[in-house]
Amino acid sequence: MNSEAFTLDPRLAADTRLLASLPLCDVRLMDDARYGWLVLVPRHDGLVEIADLGEDEQITLWREVNLASRALRAVMPCDKLNLGALGNIVRQLHLHVVARCEGDAGWPGPVWGHGQRQPLADAELHERMATLRQALAAPG
Amino acid sequence: MNSEAFTLDPRLAADTRLLASLPLCDVRLMDDARYGWLVLVPRHDGLVEIADLGEDEQITLWREVNLASRALRAVMPCDKLNLGALGNIVRQLHLHVVARCEGDAGWPGPVWGHGQRQPLADAELHERMATLRQALAAPG
Repeated sequence: MNSEAFTLDPRLAADTRLLASLPLCDVRLMDDARYGWLVLVPRHDGLVEIADLGEDEQITLWREVNLASRALRAVMPCDKLNLGALGNIVRQLHLHVVARCEGDAGWPGPVWGHGQRQPLADAELHERMATLRQALAAPG
Repeated sequence: MNSEAFTLDPRLAADTRLLASLPLCDVRLMDDARYGWLVLVPRHDGLVEIADLGEDEQITLWREVNLASRALRAVMPCDKLNLGALGNIVRQLHLHVVARCEGDAGWPGPVWGHGQRQPLADAELHERMATLRQALAAPG
């Protein structure tokens, strides 16, 4: 892996903020008041499908998805976690982990392709980022 | 794992057909003419989140998702694979692997919560099941 060559898609860069760099993925917060929403982006250029990763890196990927899921659920209790890897619009490989609550803006449908992102106010954004960073850094 | 205790949610049973029983998951075909669409269901009762599986079983799960993805792509060439684990409506843990083509019925949105399932004609259903079963049984 040559992480120096990694370039984040500008649409992901515009909508998300960096929370943590795990061994394989950057974990980013979707700046959206409607949902607790993390995006994991493996730091490889040119990746499109999960199957493009080697087997060892796939195991690392799923470990990091688990870590992110646990951290998200600890900070933002929810009724259901949603995991998605679509990439129909932004092809750079990225995985969504979303904390869903009954009655939330898109419930029970998917968050993707539903409504408009609602950016957080500055204070809320910084608080959410701080608590999620703490949870992501907490042991297992 | 006690596979004898496994009961498939009746909504999944109604919409899908069994293709193969892998070590952890049943792989089922979504009976929908709009998309090449597989659903993987771990044969455990009471599972809701991927994180409810032990670490070894999670590795098995992702191997089986990969196997299913490769088989689907071999039989139904596509522009993008979509992976999703939502469970907002049917809580029994199940993972979707969907072959997406530019311009398909829901493109570029997600398949979940979009439009109505269009059951295949009998002959098409049986042909699709036969070719997918062959691909799922093919080595690596």
